[in-house]
Amino acid sequence: MASLPTSSRQRVAAIVSRPGRPEVARILPELLAWLTAHGYHVILDPQTAKYCDGHEEVARSELSSRPLDLVVVLGGDGSLLSAVRATAASDAPLLGVNLGSLGFLTDVPLASLFPMLDQIAQGRAHIERRTLMHCELLRDAEVLGSYTAFNDVVVNKTTHARLNKYELFVDDAFVSRYRADGMIIATPTGSTAYSLSAGGPVIMPTVNAFVITPVSPHSLAHRPLVVPDSSVVEILLRSEEEVAYLSLDGQPGVDLKDGDRVRCRRSEHTVSLFRTNADFFHVLRTKLKWGEK
Amino acid sequence: MASLPTSSRQRVAAIVSRPGRPEVARILPELLAWLTAHGYHVILDPQTAKYCDGHEEVARSELSSRPLDLVVVLGGDGSLLSAVRATAASDAPLLGVNLGSLGFLTDVPLASLFPMLDQIAQGRAHIERRTLMHCELLRDAEVLGSYTAFNDVVVNKTTHARLNKYELFVDDAFVSRYRADGMIIATPTGSTAYSLSAGGPVIMPTVNAFVITPVSPHSLAHRPLVVPDSSVVEILLRSEEEVAYLSLDGQPGVDLKDGDRVRCRRSEHTVSLFRTNADFFHVLRTKLKWGEK
Amino acid sequence: MASLPTSSRQRVAAIVSRPGRPEVARILPELLAWLTAHGYHVILDPQTAKYCDGHEEVARSELSSRPLDLVVVLGGDGSLLSAVRATAASDAPLLGVNLGSLGFLTDVPLASLFPMLDQIAQGRAHIERRTLMHCELLRDAEVLGSYTAFNDVVVNKTTHARLNKYELFVDDAFVSRYRADGMIIATPTGSTAYSLSAGGPVIMPTVNAFVITPVSPHSLAHRPLVVPDSSVVEILLRSEEEVAYLSLDGQPGVDLKDGDRVRCRRSEHTVSLFRTNADFFHVLRTKLKWGEK
Amino acid sequence: MASLPTSSRQRVAAIVSRPGRPEVARILPELLAWLTAHGYHVILDPQTAKYCDGHEEVARSELSSRPLDLVVVLGGDGSLLSAVRATAASDAPLLGVNLGSLGFLTDVPLASLFPMLDQIAQGRAHIERRTLMHCELLRDAEVLGSYTAFNDVVVNKTTHARLNKYELFVDDAFVSRYRADGMIIATPTGSTAYSLSAGGPVIMPTVNAFVITPVSPHSLAHRPLVVPDSSVVEILLRSEEEVAYLSLDGQPGVDLKDGDRVRCRRSEHTVSLFRTNADFFHVLRTKLKWGEK
Repeated sequence: MASLPTSSRQRVAAIVSRPGRPEVARILPELLAWLTAHGYHVILDPQTAKYCDGHEEVARSELSSRPLDLVVVLGGDGSLLSAVRATAASDAPLLGVNLGSLGFLTDVPLASLFPMLDQIAQGRAHIERRTLMHCELLRDAEVLGSYTAFNDVVVNKTTHARLNKYELFVDDAFVSRYRADGMIIATPTGSTAYSLSAGGPVIMPTVNAFVITPVSPHSLAHRPLVVPDSSVVEILLRSEEEVAYLSLDGQPGVDLKDGDRVRCRRSEHTVSLFRTNADFFHVLRTKLKWGEK
Repeated sequence: MASLPTSSRQRVAAIVSRPGRPEVARILPELLAWLTAHGYHVILDPQTAKYCDGHEEVARSELSSRPLDLVVVLGGDGSLLSAVRATAASDAPLLGVNLGSLGFLTDVPLASLFPMLDQIAQGRAHIERRTLMHCELLRDAEVLGSYTAFNDVVVNKTTHARLNKYELFVDDAFVSRYRADGMIIATPTGSTAYSLSAGGPVIMPTVNAFVITPVSPHSLAHRPLVVPDSSVVEILLRSEEEVAYLSLDGQPGVDLKDGDRVRCRRSEHTVSLFRTNADFFHVLRTKLKWGEK
Repeated sequence: MASLPTSSRQRVAAIVSRPGRPEVARILPELLAWLTAHGYHVILDPQTAKYCDGHEEVARSELSSRPLDLVVVLGGDGSLLSAVRATAASDAPLLGVNLGSLGFLTDVPLASLFPMLDQIAQGRAHIERRTLMHCELLRDAEVLGSYTAFNDVVVNKTTHARLNKYELFVDDAFVSRYRADGMIIATPTGSTAYSLSAGGPVIMPTVNAFVITPVSPHSLAHRPLVVPDSSVVEILLRSEEEVAYLSLDGQPGVDLKDGDRVRCRRSEHTVSLFRTNADFFHVLRTKLKWGEK
Repeated sequence: MASLPTSSRQRVAAIVSRPGRPEVARILPELLAWLTAHGYHVILDPQTAKYCDGHEEVARSELSSRPLDLVVVLGGDGSLLSAVRATAASDAPLLGVNLGSLGFLTDVPLASLFPMLDQIAQGRAHIERRTLMHCELLRDAEVLGSYTAFNDVVVNKTTHARLNKYELFVDDAFVSRYRADGMIIATPTGSTAYSLSAGGPVIMPTVNAFVITPVSPHSLAHRPLVVPDSSVVEILLRSEEEVAYLSLDGQPGVDLKDGDRVRCRRSEHTVSLFRTNADFFHVLRTKLKWGEK
């Protein structure tokens, strides 16, 4: 984080880019010059490294093992989501620059990149903290996998399944049984993504909560459930015949079996985003077309 | 149909059963005796044939090629859906007997089977007509497959896809583009099935309409759309990367490719159901838990 | 209607305007000249009569007693709704000209007024039929009032009531009991108005149906119900303490008492609208912001 | 509260009852005996005082001015809501006994009254804290009224209004403009009341949040918004012609005028409820019929 003692080593900045964006090539020389001039050692993800020589290239999967002081993301919300998962362990703040339209997470337009960097250098930039989710997949009391999600953890039916049965537990208390296509557990950040399409509420990033939203539930009485983010939320798959899979932030996931448990809690890490002062509601009005003429 | 001239041949009754239900074995001798005594030649699907000898066994897939005057279904809504698809071409009326709880389509309890048969024999039984959908899958202007659906035609994402793009046309007029998990085209009969879980309205069986319900649409402005059942409804899949599949009445379906068109219209066949006088609203109140104490 | 035998009398055109629109004054001389040149006797509602002399002024409430061959509405959807109720008995076709933005019912912009009139004169204009609802209020088996609605019949709670109890009947069959703010019975035309805000589906104008949409129902299982427009739909108010009122097309309505019945059926009259070839879906995309970039 | 220094005065218990319940008369002698035996001075609201002599009767409106150590409510959720508003200033814990069916707030059946009182006397009873809302009505920068709400603050249209325009602000930041019947600001406790009927999520009582749910919003893009309960939420009424009124917990309210502001924040008081160990999810399953067979 910006406040970490960095005196003992040179500060490190990573640049992560969305594939196939010519703006990246255009902006890169100036960005590299700025970062170097401000004392950063710069490392590039493979997408960015395509556009220049002479800087260290680091695979996405290796980013998590590097100390990082700043992550610059050139792309959109998808690129930022991906960068967050790759760098979460470093707790480094991210600057998300949108190359196209305003994003929920990338509200800094390209034109504001250097003014924002100057504010960061002067310690005047606004940092927003966002919650991350830690997720474990358990089979027969064994942990099969551990994951980090920024938007959501989704258990969904596979291609030819129609409905699955899910049991929901919050802090080991049984909530309900659901017959549904799937179940979404979303952070406030993820409340404007898939959960919203499935009927969930919008949750301000400053609310300490998760929302559990069933997808096309068979029972008409089910509604999204908002729980404290200090809770442990568990989905138990109960489907002899049908099958389901686990997906994080919309990425290709893991196949599940009857009896599998997906257990989510707040991560010990948080995401720090440098933001413009364009507020959350401005983004809602623009992205979700809220408001009336 | 009951009114077809049947003098030139013996009348034929088919019995179709849900697997693994002991009630079938118990009721079968009396049912066979009744049908034979009333002049029917009886054919049995393989599930039913397990329970008795001396009657003709016919595979489900062969039922459509037989003239039929009556189909008795012993099971639930799922068995009836399956029997409808297997016998639709015969236009024979169906008597759906529920072996468990009241169904949307199988409202005749086992205790009412013989009273209902007597009413049928006397020409006093109430027949309800239901619309069927005819569906074609087109790829590169070629018809890849033709299907019959009683509940719904569903185009849905495959396991690891997140969102697909669909374009909807009604009578060749462009309606809208959807980014969604899937699209449901349902008959009034299907309006209380998957479409309802996805947010669609309940449509009385006597309304001449289909309802098109997007599943978890990205745009919050989309709503279910009710169109005349004289319309041709077409879903065009527009997804370079992601893939989708086509499913009818929740059965395992067909994989789709970018550019595929799923075209639906009212079938020339209809379903004729012998019903008790338990009305549609009684079923709604019981099955959907409508109403207040 | 355009096909009525009109040889025995001069054809009559009415002009109805929205208050306070300067465009009306500007367009009126040319419109009057066109109508007179095409053999119409022109009558004006009081709003329109403000802008010119020498033409017959007729109060809105008197329009229904006049034979009419054409009604030109200068305004928006609200003006057209009002003109429809005032002229429904004449079965005269309406030409709705929107003075501002595109309307669901007034899709003809001012710039297309005279081309449309020329098409009408040549018998080439597209006419769209829309269903009207006839509504009766019954108290103690007595008819207290009869009304015509183009969009919807709404029974809603009064100011300080919280919930009312409603019983719904379709063709005298009991559907369900609702505890809700209110109940909406909408035509397909009204399906894009209040019913949509309350969660109802969009219904194409060519579907022969009404939709019954509860407003904020207490039971989470209730859903909008689509019924044939050949049905008689009845709402029975059951509320000893609370009170409700009846409103048609959003107009100030009538106070109701416990036991009152609001009975709706399709009117014997229909609305005939001259339309451009801008289709219904174009209006959906524009007005409801359907579609994705 | 149970932990207040009460040595300097005798402890005081209030009994508040729902009108017209014969169980109150039956249970009262034993309840009074228990309270007296445990050192409480007992005061009765007028409803309860009808059933016995010799105890102090205090008007509901006077309860707030009395020091209180325990409030016993005999009735249901409505009685408890009313008692909470009457006694909030005392911070006394409430024991809500349901005389009929299980309530969201009154989960103690009559049969458990004395076991619960014994637990309270032994300091072993489970206390649940719930958030209260403080609400101010501002007109022309003047505070016209101050209110306390346990469930929700609702601004709704009056009888003959159709739609109002509302502007929503959170911590003085503009969120959006709404055309809607009304706007609900609910506590987690109120999330299972009116907000739920209007499409809001269920919020666990332990989430530090409010939810703002528009009622029948004209724009299809609006969704319930969950905000931290440290926020100041403000609704500004913008309606020249139409009018609205303010209501708290469903009680008869106050008429509003164009430009009025309704400002809500977390109250400095909280509600302390003695609960059985029947958990929140048990109540959801029972009251909302969550779950599948």
